[in-house]
Amino acid sequence: MRYITGAIALGTALVLGSLATTAQAVAAPAQPARTGGLYAPTELVLTIGQGDSRASATALRAATLSCMPTASGSHPYAKAACGQLRAASGDFTKVTGLASERICNKIWDPIVVTADGVWQGRRVTFTHTFANTCEMTYGKGSVFEF
Amino acid sequence: MRYITGAIALGTALVLGSLATTAQAVAAPAQPARTGGLYAPTELVLTIGQGDSRASATALRAATLSCMPTASGSHPYAKAACGQLRAASGDFTKVTGLASERICNKIWDPIVVTADGVWQGRRVTFTHTFANTCEMTYGKGSVFEF
Repeated sequence: MRYITGAIALGTALVLGSLATTAQAVAAPAQPARTGGLYAPTELVLTIGQGDSRASATALRAATLSCMPTASGSHPYAKAACGQLRAASGDFTKVTGLASERICNKIWDPIVVTADGVWQGRRVTFTHTFANTCEMTYGKGSVFEF
Repeated sequence: MRYITGAIALGTALVLGSLATTAQAVAAPAQPARTGGLYAPTELVLTIGQGDSRASATALRAATLSCMPTASGSHPYAKAACGQLRAASGDFTKVTGLASERICNKIWDPIVVTADGVWQGRRVTFTHTFANTCEMTYGKGSVFEF
């Protein structure tokens, strides 16, 4: 009898367990993760384009980057990019000026990188022009590595 | 003997299988999903702020939205948002003007929404000011529903 009760209890637990799972799965889309709320939003879109200014450049690549509550987005190295931005307190000029002592040729074949969006609730509009690919390689950091 | 061979073959398959899984797991970070390449990039950052202009508004909420190759991002309704933008050929003015025939009060308590980034390779810089919450409710579409 004890075994039977045990089996029934186990059965009930399994049914309840699966019901709970189903309820959770159904409830999930009704309450999507809001980007506002507990954290000041940190949501960015980064682009890399051929040209010398934001207005004239042809966008070659673009990536999204969210840093709160965790690093995510279409950026392939989101975690490293968020880490670098956090270390620079969201100051993009510090990110793109990381290794300016490197020696590059002086060919003018400009690449323009942009960042738009919000860093910890503060609006970001950033544009930087690298003279050529060499300068970009040493100056892009993890943030513009996509 | 046949059984033993079978068992050895199965064992080998299991070992090879687990090796393959390990190799894949190690190789994955070396080739991240590039946002450029086959598709023209569609990567956006959307914000909702209190105020009447982009420059003066306080960003309340922000979300990222990627539409290629699939709908993703921190936007809670990424699929619906991408669908709506696709139907409007990326024209944000069509999205925010969806239900202008609705009747709202005339209270001036403006909310400014912005979109920045790239839509199918074309740079996007969009700002729209809703006079008040009522106007926003009927005009935000799925795109600014976050």
